[in-house]
Amino acid sequence: MSTDTKQANSKNGKLLVLTPGLGAISTTFIAGVESIRRGLAKPIGSLTQMQTIRLGQRSEKRNPLIKDFVNLTPLEKLEFGAWDVIEDNAYEAAKLANVLKVEDLEPVADFMKEIEPMSAVFNQDYVKRLNGPNVKKQTNKMELAEALREDIRNKMKETGSERAVMIWCGSTEVFQHPSECHSTIEAFEQGLKDNDKAIAPSQIYAYAAIKEGVPYANGAPNLSADFKALEQLAHNNGVPIAGKDFKTGQTLMKTILAPGFKSRMLGIEGWFSTNILGNRDGEILDDPDSFRAKEVSKSGVLDTILQPELYPDLYENLYHKVRINYYPPRGDEKEGWDNIDIVGWMEYPMQIKVDFLCRDSILAAPLVLDLALLLDLAKRSGQSGIQEWLSFYFKSPQVVEGHIQEHDIFIQHFRLKNTLRILGGEKPLTHLSENFDGSH
Amino acid sequence: MSTDTKQANSKNGKLLVLTPGLGAISTTFIAGVESIRRGLAKPIGSLTQMQTIRLGQRSEKRNPLIKDFVNLTPLEKLEFGAWDVIEDNAYEAAKLANVLKVEDLEPVADFMKEIEPMSAVFNQDYVKRLNGPNVKKQTNKMELAEALREDIRNKMKETGSERAVMIWCGSTEVFQHPSECHSTIEAFEQGLKDNDKAIAPSQIYAYAAIKEGVPYANGAPNLSADFKALEQLAHNNGVPIAGKDFKTGQTLMKTILAPGFKSRMLGIEGWFSTNILGNRDGEILDDPDSFRAKEVSKSGVLDTILQPELYPDLYENLYHKVRINYYPPRGDEKEGWDNIDIVGWMEYPMQIKVDFLCRDSILAAPLVLDLALLLDLAKRSGQSGIQEWLSFYFKSPQVVEGHIQEHDIFIQHFRLKNTLRILGGEKPLTHLSENFDGSH
Amino acid sequence: MSTDTKQANSKNGKLLVLTPGLGAISTTFIAGVESIRRGLAKPIGSLTQMQTIRLGQRSEKRNPLIKDFVNLTPLEKLEFGAWDVIEDNAYEAAKLANVLKVEDLEPVADFMKEIEPMSAVFNQDYVKRLNGPNVKKQTNKMELAEALREDIRNKMKETGSERAVMIWCGSTEVFQHPSECHSTIEAFEQGLKDNDKAIAPSQIYAYAAIKEGVPYANGAPNLSADFKALEQLAHNNGVPIAGKDFKTGQTLMKTILAPGFKSRMLGIEGWFSTNILGNRDGEILDDPDSFRAKEVSKSGVLDTILQPELYPDLYENLYHKVRINYYPPRGDEKEGWDNIDIVGWMEYPMQIKVDFLCRDSILAAPLVLDLALLLDLAKRSGQSGIQEWLSFYFKSPQVVEGHIQEHDIFIQHFRLKNTLRILGGEKPLTHLSENFDGSH
Amino acid sequence: MSTDTKQANSKNGKLLVLTPGLGAISTTFIAGVESIRRGLAKPIGSLTQMQTIRLGQRSEKRNPLIKDFVNLTPLEKLEFGAWDVIEDNAYEAAKLANVLKVEDLEPVADFMKEIEPMSAVFNQDYVKRLNGPNVKKQTNKMELAEALREDIRNKMKETGSERAVMIWCGSTEVFQHPSECHSTIEAFEQGLKDNDKAIAPSQIYAYAAIKEGVPYANGAPNLSADFKALEQLAHNNGVPIAGKDFKTGQTLMKTILAPGFKSRMLGIEGWFSTNILGNRDGEILDDPDSFRAKEVSKSGVLDTILQPELYPDLYENLYHKVRINYYPPRGDEKEGWDNIDIVGWMEYPMQIKVDFLCRDSILAAPLVLDLALLLDLAKRSGQSGIQEWLSFYFKSPQVVEGHIQEHDIFIQHFRLKNTLRILGGEKPLTHLSENFDGSH
Repeated sequence: MSTDTKQANSKNGKLLVLTPGLGAISTTFIAGVESIRRGLAKPIGSLTQMQTIRLGQRSEKRNPLIKDFVNLTPLEKLEFGAWDVIEDNAYEAAKLANVLKVEDLEPVADFMKEIEPMSAVFNQDYVKRLNGPNVKKQTNKMELAEALREDIRNKMKETGSERAVMIWCGSTEVFQHPSECHSTIEAFEQGLKDNDKAIAPSQIYAYAAIKEGVPYANGAPNLSADFKALEQLAHNNGVPIAGKDFKTGQTLMKTILAPGFKSRMLGIEGWFSTNILGNRDGEILDDPDSFRAKEVSKSGVLDTILQPELYPDLYENLYHKVRINYYPPRGDEKEGWDNIDIVGWMEYPMQIKVDFLCRDSILAAPLVLDLALLLDLAKRSGQSGIQEWLSFYFKSPQVVEGHIQEHDIFIQHFRLKNTLRILGGEKPLTHLSENFDGSH
Repeated sequence: MSTDTKQANSKNGKLLVLTPGLGAISTTFIAGVESIRRGLAKPIGSLTQMQTIRLGQRSEKRNPLIKDFVNLTPLEKLEFGAWDVIEDNAYEAAKLANVLKVEDLEPVADFMKEIEPMSAVFNQDYVKRLNGPNVKKQTNKMELAEALREDIRNKMKETGSERAVMIWCGSTEVFQHPSECHSTIEAFEQGLKDNDKAIAPSQIYAYAAIKEGVPYANGAPNLSADFKALEQLAHNNGVPIAGKDFKTGQTLMKTILAPGFKSRMLGIEGWFSTNILGNRDGEILDDPDSFRAKEVSKSGVLDTILQPELYPDLYENLYHKVRINYYPPRGDEKEGWDNIDIVGWMEYPMQIKVDFLCRDSILAAPLVLDLALLLDLAKRSGQSGIQEWLSFYFKSPQVVEGHIQEHDIFIQHFRLKNTLRILGGEKPLTHLSENFDGSH
Repeated sequence: MSTDTKQANSKNGKLLVLTPGLGAISTTFIAGVESIRRGLAKPIGSLTQMQTIRLGQRSEKRNPLIKDFVNLTPLEKLEFGAWDVIEDNAYEAAKLANVLKVEDLEPVADFMKEIEPMSAVFNQDYVKRLNGPNVKKQTNKMELAEALREDIRNKMKETGSERAVMIWCGSTEVFQHPSECHSTIEAFEQGLKDNDKAIAPSQIYAYAAIKEGVPYANGAPNLSADFKALEQLAHNNGVPIAGKDFKTGQTLMKTILAPGFKSRMLGIEGWFSTNILGNRDGEILDDPDSFRAKEVSKSGVLDTILQPELYPDLYENLYHKVRINYYPPRGDEKEGWDNIDIVGWMEYPMQIKVDFLCRDSILAAPLVLDLALLLDLAKRSGQSGIQEWLSFYFKSPQVVEGHIQEHDIFIQHFRLKNTLRILGGEKPLTHLSENFDGSH
Repeated sequence: MSTDTKQANSKNGKLLVLTPGLGAISTTFIAGVESIRRGLAKPIGSLTQMQTIRLGQRSEKRNPLIKDFVNLTPLEKLEFGAWDVIEDNAYEAAKLANVLKVEDLEPVADFMKEIEPMSAVFNQDYVKRLNGPNVKKQTNKMELAEALREDIRNKMKETGSERAVMIWCGSTEVFQHPSECHSTIEAFEQGLKDNDKAIAPSQIYAYAAIKEGVPYANGAPNLSADFKALEQLAHNNGVPIAGKDFKTGQTLMKTILAPGFKSRMLGIEGWFSTNILGNRDGEILDDPDSFRAKEVSKSGVLDTILQPELYPDLYENLYHKVRINYYPPRGDEKEGWDNIDIVGWMEYPMQIKVDFLCRDSILAAPLVLDLALLLDLAKRSGQSGIQEWLSFYFKSPQVVEGHIQEHDIFIQHFRLKNTLRILGGEKPLTHLSENFDGSH
């Protein structure tokens, strides 16, 4: 490989974090970063800010913070920009989202009020239960892309940023398979010019970012940058991309639990997952087409982790059912209930029930931060195209064609940290005891 | 290292599995092995029998079964021997334990009836709520040790076994700290001769095994072989040992979940664990001294995984409470309920409740099998003393002095498999993507 | 009223219990009754067999068993008959249903094998996911009714029964509103002759029973006897009827919990109920039309109990959602999970989660017994038409036009017992302390 | 009886509500009443304020509010007084208790700040983990009683109140059985003069109230007024009393669920209840002696409801275990988890798990209000001594010697409402259908 970690570009300049969507997740993210900068909060949930990384043998006691070890952009250097169909500034949008309590939002109100959304590329065909007035007037998709590119350049200039990253924090678009126009760069650009129906807004954002050399990550389950044309473009342009669908809530729990059962060779007969949630996301997912995208994103998880092809006796007949229910009484406070029917020695059944009273945006916000900083690091380190080592953050990790998605959060985490070790010029870990460690 | 894996002794001869204790766990283990041999069951829950091991890059598609890769003793070669204070044979003991249904026990009744317990070394000072007539008459502890050594030699001869392993499947003894007589081999042997009060029956079993060159593992939380004198003896005699306390039920879940939360840098404010169980184990743990041993074994888990010294903001104030309640209505079907108070971005609280309707002996039985086969492998591979790479199986892994216990089940599993790769002459895995993998 | 309790006909003769459907519920019911008669089981879950009834003031200590107080038909006098589309006898059907363990079924195998199903009136238009060969050949609905009447007469003769009752234990038919032909006796009989599409099999059974003077109860949510024409017919013919949908599982819990919250004036913002079940019933309910009937039956419960029209501040905005999921791993062992969002003083929210691991047929079987005996009692006591005092047993109690359904299980129970007191010639209870009791 | 409901004294004058204890419960109660008076909140959880009462047949549609039907003192007429060992005023105490959010407390801050606690009668022998400076100096218990009586008279004068009631909202005192000095009025008064150790502070409060003709209710499980001497005194002085231990949380749920299972004759093999709570109450209950009082209060519930003496087959072997755990992460937000092992037809087991995330003070506050108003009504209606019809509000209802406690919340509720009907000059309800109702 050609990772040139020593020549990673300076991280001194400002980094602009752009989010399509200025809703629950992005306002929680922005308010949090500013609160941390003002010493009012700690970056809980953020690996880049809080996690240490062990280097060498345990006895060496080298455990620097990741952010120091690989020279991540410090929070002080972050700037923010966003697009949204609703005209509310970040403060108003955060109040509406009702994730943060008044007492947590007020101390950064001045900062939040300054962030006004740029007009969005939007089309209700792709997100049925959402609408708003703050929408770009252009009718041609290539022109819309050009307008977004201009937005990016303007916002960088306006904020004095040297670099930028874009993280999709918008709503889930309707389910799509890639079509003809997604297969090559040329086809896609022709599609933009021809207003091809198969090109959804999130794809236009991803295209604009990549064209501008801006790393892109997709926090929702829709296609966005997950097709050949944009992968190729990202590769050609030296732009790292990653996706898709932030791994939070029930799927997070699933990718923690399933590897545990598998490590012990416990069989699984059934896994029933139901969710109740009452936020805008829940309302949008009440639309069957949007739900379909989410469902596909959530379902693959178990199969990939459990490898029923290797373990037919244990996992071949696993009955997996995922349900999402719009249930207004809770707002952003989602609840996921799982029933898992496991099987042990002599095929005796056992049951596990997990009730997770979580908060969607609270779990997602630090992922936005981590992805912004790590994609920026990747770019500065000369990486381009799909960053599989960031699978840790996604429900449905985007992988290079022919590769298998890795869903096991511990393997994902292990890979992430060993990749950081490599990027930082250290040796990867094998967790062998000293007496077995071939590296000694 | 000097592991000479190629010269691992032949695994053709018979292997005798000796269990102090012929109760719920050991009878479930034996009935299961025999059912598997007769084609009536599958070895669910056993890593040695069912798990594959990936060798090289994913694309190489080399995934042999572990048992084939490292030449484990096949089930056909296993013989069984046990000691118990109650005179019931394995069939009667299994019926009393009431773990297996009649329809699962009957098909191997003939085999089980043949297994009669040898008379036990027992003293009610160490296990208060248990008693029985089948006890050795000797009153001197060294003489008791000699009697056990003779039992071992006789049983090997009787069954035509070439090798043996011993797995403690007896009840939990009262809590003890190591004392003077546990510090050196000499002091311990003198203590045996002097009938030192500090020497509990399980220690006499462990001593007898090690003196006979028989690998020893401890499935309960009491001291047994977890002190300097026996560690040294094991090392000197080329005998692998491992312990302690089979990792099942609630602690198993804890070591699956906690690493997940930590990987995401989610804080934890409180973890409340309560258990209800109604088997003999539950009755014994109703005695405060026995419970104390269990409690100590269960409590260290979170601290070691979460490293509050590295992450004070996340885990320093974690309030961890473990309760065990004797509750007869359930018999062997234990239930563990956990409430976990986690904290995310901006210090917002979330809650997780886990209800695990498990079966103690069903979860423990395959661990007996795995430990027997892996300790035998270790011995044949020239290993001796504490086998930290078997931490995967224990609530409170026994480690070499100065080493830190590893409780994270995924690191334990990773280490176990990388150790097997080394023992099998392959390279350890780092989970790096090809483009980052320095080994290429 | 004209209840002539003293002249209730003799209960000495045999009572024939007829069940359309010889599946999980009816075979569990029959096997249970026979086991009780043979002294192998106790009639747990049956009010008629086990419950006492307090007469007079507490201090009088008069607490006879209900069955003795009102002279119910003793179990020894029960005979059984059934119709089913599948030809299995009761023993085979019970094995297939897999509710009872082998060891509980075998001791009554001889008795069960004797019960062969009569050929059924069936039409797949009404129950889509079921089929079988044991179906009556007649094509005209009136002729089918005549055939059933003949079955009843034959079976009574064959078993030497003096009286009979019929309890619908068949599958849920598709949802229907009453239509034209359900409005009068004449219209209904014309409809039978004309093969009116609106007349489902369960209605033909109910008609046949009522014409034969046989009391009828409906354990499923479909229309059956719940319309004007059959109510009128029952009234005219002196036949008691009751329905509908056995109150078991989650709805049982709901009608226990909701009256409790209401008694304390605790508000409810949301009630989310999900079910997982894997038996034939679950499969049938996977058909949206059948589910619709069930859903309607389950939904009304909360509204009627909570009276949002009287308590708008507490219950007007209650968000009630019921989900049923087919989930094969469990068989007959249904699981219902409820989340209830309640509100207290100063509008502070609280949550209750209820997880009910129940068994459908085990809960339903004693209801079949109670209804058979109580309907027979009602008939012997001169009652006719809808028996509202049996609401205790139903998810969706059938009531006389203009009456309000009562769902509160405690009011239902109270009414049931006060009705029995009246039928037995005693005074109803008011639960007043002596010093407040106006009756003294 | 001689209830002279028509001559109930005027309710026009002010009613002073006195609470020993100005902590979580009483400040939540006071803040709530004032918020309701200012139109900022609704009296959720209060039967006296929100519940209607059906009079006559359903068809008559007479459903007045209880408060109008029996002429309860309106909230506008309430005044407040309290004693506490800590000098904080009600506003400061409420902030410390941390039950109400800042935004709910601030709008009534002016009112709360005016309520200063009178100096308390306190002795740490009875409540070990509590202390404070605001304590009366007298050392003789009779003198302390006199001082409290003076406080009552002064506070009534100061607030211009015509009548008063006292509700114990203080901490749980250590467990006691009644002793010699509790048996007669004379012995008790002598004990006060002699500083008898057996007389705890809460008893001195109760004595003072009764001597002043002030109705008294006890919200905690300690003895207080639950012994012969004070019962007799209350009776002689025409003072209604009631107790003890507010029925909230887990016990509330238990008295809702158990009557439901019993109505259906479902057996119960085990009921395991565990609680985690982190407020001052939890800390105090961590003291084994205080817990003992609570445990006794909580344990009797099931036995009385289930009547194992009548139903040995169903409830004789019920294993009931209650655990309370101090767990700081939650503060006032208590959580109760119950596992219930029920048994149905053919002795098949089923399980129910209930997880109640409740708030102690939110559930208790409206009970303080109801008891104050209903005891005042009782007094005005000429009642005296123990008011069993108020059992609805208590975990351990105080009853006249020889009477059986009633724990079934539905019978309690039924009795409460029928008593109100009598007090309001109406007929009690029997819930009979019209055609069975002998009263017609």
